[in-house]
Amino acid sequence: MGKLLDSIDSPQDLKILSLEKLDRLADEIRQLLISFCRRHGGHLGSNLATIEPIIALHYVFDMPHDHLIFDVSHQAYTHKILTGRRRAYTDPESQEDLSGFTSPKESPYDDFMLGHTGTSIGLACGMAAQRDATGGRANIIAFIGDGSLSSGPAFEGLDWAAEQGGNLIIVVNDNEMSIAENHGGLYKSLAALRASGGRNPNNPFRALGLDYRYVEEGNRIEDLIEAFRQVKDTDHPVVVHIHTRKGLGLSQGSQRQIGPTSLPDLPAEGPVEANHWQDGLDSLNRLPNSRKTYGRMAMQALEARFPQEPGLTVISPATPLSNGIDPDFRQRAGNHYRDVGIAESHAIAYAAGIAKAGGTPVVATSATFFQRAYDQIEQEMALNGSAVTLLVFSTGVAKTDATHSGTADMVMMRGIPALTCLAPTSGVEFLDMLAWATGPARQPVVIRVPGERTLATERAGKPIAPATSDPTSGGQPWDRYRILQQGRTVALLALGDALPLGHDLADSLERSTGLKPTLVDPHRYDRLDKQTLDALASTHSLVVTIEDGQLDSGWGQAVAAYYGPARVRTLSFGAAKEFNDRVPQATLLERYGMTVPAMTQAISDALVDRAS
Amino acid sequence: MGKLLDSIDSPQDLKILSLEKLDRLADEIRQLLISFCRRHGGHLGSNLATIEPIIALHYVFDMPHDHLIFDVSHQAYTHKILTGRRRAYTDPESQEDLSGFTSPKESPYDDFMLGHTGTSIGLACGMAAQRDATGGRANIIAFIGDGSLSSGPAFEGLDWAAEQGGNLIIVVNDNEMSIAENHGGLYKSLAALRASGGRNPNNPFRALGLDYRYVEEGNRIEDLIEAFRQVKDTDHPVVVHIHTRKGLGLSQGSQRQIGPTSLPDLPAEGPVEANHWQDGLDSLNRLPNSRKTYGRMAMQALEARFPQEPGLTVISPATPLSNGIDPDFRQRAGNHYRDVGIAESHAIAYAAGIAKAGGTPVVATSATFFQRAYDQIEQEMALNGSAVTLLVFSTGVAKTDATHSGTADMVMMRGIPALTCLAPTSGVEFLDMLAWATGPARQPVVIRVPGERTLATERAGKPIAPATSDPTSGGQPWDRYRILQQGRTVALLALGDALPLGHDLADSLERSTGLKPTLVDPHRYDRLDKQTLDALASTHSLVVTIEDGQLDSGWGQAVAAYYGPARVRTLSFGAAKEFNDRVPQATLLERYGMTVPAMTQAISDALVDRAS
Repeated sequence: MGKLLDSIDSPQDLKILSLEKLDRLADEIRQLLISFCRRHGGHLGSNLATIEPIIALHYVFDMPHDHLIFDVSHQAYTHKILTGRRRAYTDPESQEDLSGFTSPKESPYDDFMLGHTGTSIGLACGMAAQRDATGGRANIIAFIGDGSLSSGPAFEGLDWAAEQGGNLIIVVNDNEMSIAENHGGLYKSLAALRASGGRNPNNPFRALGLDYRYVEEGNRIEDLIEAFRQVKDTDHPVVVHIHTRKGLGLSQGSQRQIGPTSLPDLPAEGPVEANHWQDGLDSLNRLPNSRKTYGRMAMQALEARFPQEPGLTVISPATPLSNGIDPDFRQRAGNHYRDVGIAESHAIAYAAGIAKAGGTPVVATSATFFQRAYDQIEQEMALNGSAVTLLVFSTGVAKTDATHSGTADMVMMRGIPALTCLAPTSGVEFLDMLAWATGPARQPVVIRVPGERTLATERAGKPIAPATSDPTSGGQPWDRYRILQQGRTVALLALGDALPLGHDLADSLERSTGLKPTLVDPHRYDRLDKQTLDALASTHSLVVTIEDGQLDSGWGQAVAAYYGPARVRTLSFGAAKEFNDRVPQATLLERYGMTVPAMTQAISDALVDRAS
Repeated sequence: MGKLLDSIDSPQDLKILSLEKLDRLADEIRQLLISFCRRHGGHLGSNLATIEPIIALHYVFDMPHDHLIFDVSHQAYTHKILTGRRRAYTDPESQEDLSGFTSPKESPYDDFMLGHTGTSIGLACGMAAQRDATGGRANIIAFIGDGSLSSGPAFEGLDWAAEQGGNLIIVVNDNEMSIAENHGGLYKSLAALRASGGRNPNNPFRALGLDYRYVEEGNRIEDLIEAFRQVKDTDHPVVVHIHTRKGLGLSQGSQRQIGPTSLPDLPAEGPVEANHWQDGLDSLNRLPNSRKTYGRMAMQALEARFPQEPGLTVISPATPLSNGIDPDFRQRAGNHYRDVGIAESHAIAYAAGIAKAGGTPVVATSATFFQRAYDQIEQEMALNGSAVTLLVFSTGVAKTDATHSGTADMVMMRGIPALTCLAPTSGVEFLDMLAWATGPARQPVVIRVPGERTLATERAGKPIAPATSDPTSGGQPWDRYRILQQGRTVALLALGDALPLGHDLADSLERSTGLKPTLVDPHRYDRLDKQTLDALASTHSLVVTIEDGQLDSGWGQAVAAYYGPARVRTLSFGAAKEFNDRVPQATLLERYGMTVPAMTQAISDALVDRAS
């Protein structure tokens, strides 16, 4: 195994191979990807579906003179393997070297760092426009999955492509699957196109004025080469719709071939959600993470109310599984669960409509995906006072791809008026908040789902905050901060998943300075509890805020500004405003001075400075 | 005139009228809208096109039991007139009473407050889902213009409507015009549908799995009633494509009928941009506002470079005119100007593609419209370091519709890493910044176009800041704050269009306290000039920030947090985090304590407090 692949250092090496050898190469890559994803984890199914298309594209076109832009770009493993980066897939020592997405830092064959859907066509249009403005002749190719086509930006790009004209090739990689099942009327059209060999008259691409070709055997290199040759150097935008098979190569056979039996079972071939993401070896025997744990907890609590509340609706824009919205829940939920496809803008507008009509929608997705609905959160949800609850998953300072950082969500949400933004510090409080938001609140609420620190304290049986909160303590529930420990001189305000850190810091401070600080759980970050802040001012000279998110424009800065005219001094801890690509959490916390020793030191210094 | 109209207090009164009388009613409303818009200003053309459709909808359906959701909702004047709100159109004394958009605060016939495009279908889907969950039978109708259809959220909604099924009526009001000309492949399909009486096989609605009907005479009440009756109580989603005429009724004839000859000429009937917005009497002889003035200035500066720079491209998502991107400029610019339609997400992705290929894109639109591209600004532009320049128009505390507030843009932009955010304080500095951003910078830059205060000082020949800035003073241009007046004890940092306010405040403080404050022009709001802030700390005990935008999560809070651990106290002035609908600027400034007397008092109090 691997003999042919060893000779491929760039796409040039591919171009001299016979068709038979290209097929062998595809087989080698398939085995490589299966073993890589089993060991390291990865987007297995989509990459298995795109091996032959990517081989054929590199065979026919001349990258990087021609440009190949992958939408979302998690399906580009074969592209990386063919463009001089195969070592990361063959050598377990190097498996962490590459991003799971395209990255210009890695290779001149990658034009963009992408991890959100739908923009490949717009980017390609831009590159094509600049090519035409400067008299270039490169082919510009956008490679986009059927699951991405439901997103607004993809449509906007298709619509514009037809207007712009000129060379532009849009490869629609149709594996009949989004992250979970596809949703939307468009998919009926794609199915009809597949069933008719591309001849069905209801063609969404032609209806936008685009030329169109269909390739039924989207995993047959020969057919793909022929199709791509036909459109190479086209003078107008053309869609090449290729029918591929997600997870192609996965079967009992391939399971037996690879790895010891103790490895987690590989999913089956074909359009199954389970093969969207393959967990790696390191996830073996690991407990469910905070996303899955608290997500399942929330779904369970909501499900109990389904029989009595016809309008209680969980909406997930295409990414249910990683947030604990499991297939069996979805099955049982019926119309109480709606996967609207990758269409976050629609998810919020849809939720606002349900709320207006008296229903109770809960939109659940990852922190950065909510960015795609900023305008709808601001207008349809907040301005209209719509009783929509957002569950924000995957937040906080962590090792993530730059496209999926969890540090920016609080800054984004708290900037928008009329959103009640909550940061629970225990599972029980999370459910209390969810019950309030989906019950008496009837207003826009954002809940930041607790993260790993909170989960760890709960699993260790040492939760920091009391098990239940007191939602009646203020004009609104969670209006008032909660004093967990009354001390003096220094007050530590530790928000949400930063509370365990605040707790450890309190211990450390007491040990090192003899001073017992006050520890406060603010559990709300859209506005301040001025009453508590005023009270703290009378007995404390330093107020410290800690938040598991971006410092600039964050909640801690609001606290500092509130104390601005007063004599109380403040110190704010949080993440820098910067992009990070797969930087380990420990490195980041060190860099941000968010370790207990660093914070202890900073506070001690501030106290000495004050005394001097 | 007005006899029939006088009898219409609710849609019930309409239902007893004969066809002939309905036609007369339409005529009366047409005359009323022309005179209203001429006097008060308004979205004249689109409202003239929708008189008959709205009459027919209210005749056939039973609002508010049935629900009629207007996309953008600026075309709903007739709806307001028919639902008990005609007085605002007939009585000049009441002409300010109503929003130019739908508003649930005004009437139970309005479900949402909307002013951005594309979400009506998603909202309608949500209301329909809740109806079906609770066994209701109401018709849910989304009324959306052809110009809105290019927006991603509209597509996402159409796609989902087909999947959801059940009663849903989508009226596509096709007046052959967006705000300016329509752009995108979709419009060729709409044109082909119009030309074929709805029979062209390339049907973008059918291609999404939706049922479809066409009405050629979209301003003929009889035809509309027939079409709407056919779809009333439908059991599945259906698109009713109606062909209307923008500005119907405008002609020399109607001009002669109405008003004195000194009024500005009315535009002609048909798809002309000029009739999108009709200026009112109060704009007569008024000088161009800051948007138009500085927008034209920017276009002029860029145009001079077009011959040498093939990739220098101005991109406007459908709203050129109000930002000084005039038709004659667009004509001359050729492909240096691109109107991508109402498709902000695409505008940014497209710009990032142009930049990647070496071009120099400038995206120009209003503050709140950039919200629709938040994710693309964060990912495709900022994360990818794309050399895209954003010109943010229509900013600051002002009397605006709640959907178009200019107070949130700085908070949004400064929360995103890697954006250089500039707030020029003169026309010359604005052009300097634009030249830098589109020249040597080759990085993502956001420029907040100067507003009315700056323009007023320039027109009065009394600009506050020096005419030219010194872009070489720091590591990056505008890295360093500019000291305009060196004083002591109090430093006033007045950002962008707040600088004239800061200048007046400095004078007032000196008059009232004898103390000459330091006056600083920060002209950058994404990060702090820590060197200058440190220097100020040594000679000042109070640092005051003034920004013409939202205080919470804003630049002033970052300054306060920077001084948090130090002995310097801070006071921050800016807008509250709240929604405001057409509240006069003076009222808002009063409420925010942003008048010179209020700020003088607050600073004096803080100084006394300090001394005590």
